[in-house]
Amino acid sequence: MIDFRSDNTGRAAPEILDALVRSNSGTALGYGADDWTVQLQDRFSELFEIQVRVFPVATGTAANALSLAAIAPSWGNVFCSAAAHINTSEANAAGFFGGGLKLAPVAGEHGKVDGDALAQTLAGFPPGQLHRGQPAAVSLTQASDLGAVYRLDEVRAVAEIAKARGLHTHMDGARLANALARLQCSPADLSWRSGIDILSFGATKNGGALCDAIVVFKPELADGLAVQLRRAGQVWSKMRFASAQLMAYIEDGLWLRLATASNRAAARIAGGIAGTPGLKLVAPVEANEIFLELPSGVMDALEADGFQFYRRSTTLARFVCRFDVTDSEADALVASLKRHCAPSARAAE
Amino acid sequence: MIDFRSDNTGRAAPEILDALVRSNSGTALGYGADDWTVQLQDRFSELFEIQVRVFPVATGTAANALSLAAIAPSWGNVFCSAAAHINTSEANAAGFFGGGLKLAPVAGEHGKVDGDALAQTLAGFPPGQLHRGQPAAVSLTQASDLGAVYRLDEVRAVAEIAKARGLHTHMDGARLANALARLQCSPADLSWRSGIDILSFGATKNGGALCDAIVVFKPELADGLAVQLRRAGQVWSKMRFASAQLMAYIEDGLWLRLATASNRAAARIAGGIAGTPGLKLVAPVEANEIFLELPSGVMDALEADGFQFYRRSTTLARFVCRFDVTDSEADALVASLKRHCAPSARAAE
Amino acid sequence: MIDFRSDNTGRAAPEILDALVRSNSGTALGYGADDWTVQLQDRFSELFEIQVRVFPVATGTAANALSLAAIAPSWGNVFCSAAAHINTSEANAAGFFGGGLKLAPVAGEHGKVDGDALAQTLAGFPPGQLHRGQPAAVSLTQASDLGAVYRLDEVRAVAEIAKARGLHTHMDGARLANALARLQCSPADLSWRSGIDILSFGATKNGGALCDAIVVFKPELADGLAVQLRRAGQVWSKMRFASAQLMAYIEDGLWLRLATASNRAAARIAGGIAGTPGLKLVAPVEANEIFLELPSGVMDALEADGFQFYRRSTTLARFVCRFDVTDSEADALVASLKRHCAPSARAAE
Amino acid sequence: MIDFRSDNTGRAAPEILDALVRSNSGTALGYGADDWTVQLQDRFSELFEIQVRVFPVATGTAANALSLAAIAPSWGNVFCSAAAHINTSEANAAGFFGGGLKLAPVAGEHGKVDGDALAQTLAGFPPGQLHRGQPAAVSLTQASDLGAVYRLDEVRAVAEIAKARGLHTHMDGARLANALARLQCSPADLSWRSGIDILSFGATKNGGALCDAIVVFKPELADGLAVQLRRAGQVWSKMRFASAQLMAYIEDGLWLRLATASNRAAARIAGGIAGTPGLKLVAPVEANEIFLELPSGVMDALEADGFQFYRRSTTLARFVCRFDVTDSEADALVASLKRHCAPSARAAE
Repeated sequence: MIDFRSDNTGRAAPEILDALVRSNSGTALGYGADDWTVQLQDRFSELFEIQVRVFPVATGTAANALSLAAIAPSWGNVFCSAAAHINTSEANAAGFFGGGLKLAPVAGEHGKVDGDALAQTLAGFPPGQLHRGQPAAVSLTQASDLGAVYRLDEVRAVAEIAKARGLHTHMDGARLANALARLQCSPADLSWRSGIDILSFGATKNGGALCDAIVVFKPELADGLAVQLRRAGQVWSKMRFASAQLMAYIEDGLWLRLATASNRAAARIAGGIAGTPGLKLVAPVEANEIFLELPSGVMDALEADGFQFYRRSTTLARFVCRFDVTDSEADALVASLKRHCAPSARAAE
Repeated sequence: MIDFRSDNTGRAAPEILDALVRSNSGTALGYGADDWTVQLQDRFSELFEIQVRVFPVATGTAANALSLAAIAPSWGNVFCSAAAHINTSEANAAGFFGGGLKLAPVAGEHGKVDGDALAQTLAGFPPGQLHRGQPAAVSLTQASDLGAVYRLDEVRAVAEIAKARGLHTHMDGARLANALARLQCSPADLSWRSGIDILSFGATKNGGALCDAIVVFKPELADGLAVQLRRAGQVWSKMRFASAQLMAYIEDGLWLRLATASNRAAARIAGGIAGTPGLKLVAPVEANEIFLELPSGVMDALEADGFQFYRRSTTLARFVCRFDVTDSEADALVASLKRHCAPSARAAE
Repeated sequence: MIDFRSDNTGRAAPEILDALVRSNSGTALGYGADDWTVQLQDRFSELFEIQVRVFPVATGTAANALSLAAIAPSWGNVFCSAAAHINTSEANAAGFFGGGLKLAPVAGEHGKVDGDALAQTLAGFPPGQLHRGQPAAVSLTQASDLGAVYRLDEVRAVAEIAKARGLHTHMDGARLANALARLQCSPADLSWRSGIDILSFGATKNGGALCDAIVVFKPELADGLAVQLRRAGQVWSKMRFASAQLMAYIEDGLWLRLATASNRAAARIAGGIAGTPGLKLVAPVEANEIFLELPSGVMDALEADGFQFYRRSTTLARFVCRFDVTDSEADALVASLKRHCAPSARAAE
Repeated sequence: MIDFRSDNTGRAAPEILDALVRSNSGTALGYGADDWTVQLQDRFSELFEIQVRVFPVATGTAANALSLAAIAPSWGNVFCSAAAHINTSEANAAGFFGGGLKLAPVAGEHGKVDGDALAQTLAGFPPGQLHRGQPAAVSLTQASDLGAVYRLDEVRAVAEIAKARGLHTHMDGARLANALARLQCSPADLSWRSGIDILSFGATKNGGALCDAIVVFKPELADGLAVQLRRAGQVWSKMRFASAQLMAYIEDGLWLRLATASNRAAARIAGGIAGTPGLKLVAPVEANEIFLELPSGVMDALEADGFQFYRRSTTLARFVCRFDVTDSEADALVASLKRHCAPSARAAE
């Protein structure tokens, strides 16, 4: 079997588990008062070229929902793509941690929020109206849930429209490293310099093991968030084991190497199938995911060939590349796709 | 420095991290559909001698709050000891995850809920009253937050009173292994056979690293809880790394060996100071914690001697034994306590 | 000015205020233990031909949100029309009182939930999935938010599909009387006999003053709801003043007479404009609301003529008939609409 | 029967219902955009000698819980008297609307929060701690739930301590008029001039019918609160019927006349029984409530004499005076109390 199901089916990078094991010496204060977590603040502040507060959390869902709860009141609306993970896949965690806040979809291509569409949506919420909730924040998924990547100017355009209306901005960076590897820009450029207030910093999908993080760029948000994280059961008493993972993740550019590898595999597949009749990409392949419209017969045939992937609908297949996908695995998928999508194969099905 | 601050300042047992590292091979389905988590269900069902559902979670706070939210409506009252961790130290996580449920203290000795006191409290909530919330559940902390351990008959007495009124029962087993090591009974006897519906299964304080668990004895509670855990950001996508820890924790009785060691250290200290004038235990030392009423001058002197511990108030000190406290560390604390509490020493301070 | 803005801009029926004033004698127990509220239970049980529990509440939003919170867990999805008031106009009260539950739109014509569309939507929530929340309930707005009315067989079809999946059913009867007046069926037929579990019983829009109600057909839901209403600040201590209003509302068929009058006015307008070129109804006029696609120039002209109504968008106008709209007011609107929509008028604009 | 059960068992003042009925003419915009509600803002701003925002709500519970939710984050602690209505009688509405906020009792005499005790309690919450929630607000009940009244200097002392720590301040004025009648000070002096940020303005207990209000002194709190009230189902669409009541309530000092009458009746009773052996007041009678420690035999005898009142425990009886209690009713209670508490009577029981 060759696994293209998800980046969360994969192994952790050994460097990360090594660091976790190494942190198991001596005693250390609980709940984030340990040396590792203190050091983590400095490392992330260097990485983002500004003083940040970074909070390790167990999952990306926790990072997203608690970030949104920190920037929106419970009677607020958070605007996002209809395809956003927070909207489709997190069991309404944002609505829960946000005390009833509502996710409000905004149009846009390839799983991205479009600036003009956001402006138009906001126009439908005149100041002082009570009935539809209060516009409060916008959330961008970078890379998007359809495998596309916001350019810096796109992030800035959305953030400007948001700020003009007094909205906060959140970035769901479950695949932040993949976006950075694509854009070849700095973490600072992609986040606060482009107007982002708070960031879900993903590690798990890119070779991490048991933690992601929240990175806070607006200091006034951090103290309240710290208490809410404790209350949410997201503050490990032995926090060092989480912080050590996160430090290893960014050490010497590990995270970018891992993301570059998974992006490259996806690009290799996309390049390999380019021009094949009957193969339609739903969005440009800019990170490590490939979304293809495929007849279900072709999906059956791929599975029969030993490929694992997710069927998002009867006609939509998703293939995700982990950091350790090999060239031969990528090439095998290309070959299989081409074979089953060739007109003669299609006619025979 | 000799550290008696908390069991969460300690290392993880190496066996647990070894298991975590070993699980890092191949690909595995996400969100608990992996082989490790499936196997975990069987192992815990054997351990508890009944079919259970076990859910790994990041922290004990998550285990407690989500357990309570599973057994109490949002307009419910959960009865517990005033000293209970859920009441004093979890930033009202129970009230949050429970959608506004209220913790209602019940009297009892040594951090335990007393059955008679519970019955009397319940009498103050006549059926049909609307103003004080609906009695919904009772939560017992085993071992208690003052270092005492409920006997089996005490657990049963409380559970019976609860059941007679239609209340659910929760056990906060942050130090369950310490209680089991003390009582020398089976996990089944201490939980469902004594009337417990749902259990916070602690590992972190007893040599674990990054996860605890919820064990559900009433099958009808499990499906809803599973969704709520997902929504709470407590379902790791790479769950295998958590499940592997929990399996190692109970493998070959590791958890009981660790708890026996920390209990023994606490008993050694308690035995060593027994009869010392001026040393007053707040509760019997039945697990791995020692609560002493001490003049603040004595606390200063102990710190000057290199001991670390928590001051719960200006006159109350807490000493916690980890599984790797050595006999000589325990003996050193005894000696220091005796020295500073001797009448002549006291007079000199 | 002639007011077609909303049924909530209107007066209360004098009979209702008379009853309120008459109830102001003697002392009476608080929080619903008074004679009026006790009697209300009997009257509504007769009205619905089954033992019900009826709870007066301040607003329709409270009725809807607390009804949904009573039948869905906080991690649940409630399916409804995208046009439903609960989804568009109540500031996500359902998500708030429901502790984070999510409203999930289902397709259908004229603001109604379509049975087949519901079945198809539910198929997208396979049992055991954790990521999208748990299907929990369906809510029907009767009459719909576009002025249409579910036929009995339509209600039953949706309820059957819901029940087959274990979902609860709610009817938002903000305009229940208008639907009953249209269908000429009994309240029992339109509610529990068609599979409805809990009902928002609207009075305010139909000549009421300060209260609506929740009617519970499943007894097991009532006790918890009673406590939650108390907690929600929806239990008046001087409840008699609310219960007296509700009894007067249904006394001698007052509610149906009022709804018949407003329905008749709407039908008169719809009949009057039928066949006028350029006038397009968005949905059949089956209750007391008329939704028309109109050029904004026509809307301007109507306002210049002294008509008040709501612009739902630049091309959609809503006209609502209160119980006291006169024939001449209705005819005046017809005349104005015809005049401004005549081709020559249109050409001139 | 002579009713001393509660001020909510009583009638409404006829002036209030008259105003309600008079407002029933013409059409008016919904949800508070009507003329009555606009005018209400001006009247209350005059009354409080500062620009305020006033929001009619259905109940005092709604006023309290939504006020607290407006001034405290969901991870906050609100300090109050253990005897406070919000803590004992509102089914934890504050915890619900506050998204899990916790009420934390502070010591003090006669149902009042003591400034020194508050300072001491706050010292137990060092800045930066995560485990006990974040100190957020203090709530004072004026008059207190034991019938006492804060002096102005007492209110100020508590507010100053609160402000010094960055806490917001709330006053539960369910019996505000009774306190004002007692203190003979202005509403401004008792509220914002003494450091209060937000006020539950009670009317129901003092001759009102179906509404109380929230008065906001900090403008920045009002817009968010307005949306949350809408979401809470506390914004009537026919708001004029509520606003008309509230204007009548304060018109020409009606509210103070009503409170003066009920205070006077309570004082008459307290004066009548003063010095009677065996009669022990729990708190000074400064408003319209009398709390007496009584043997249950005496309570039985009073009931046999035809008096209605509430037994708060087997030894604590509460007597509440409504505005329309007559002198002869008050005197009858005095006589009965004296008779049953006379030593000979007591000996015979």
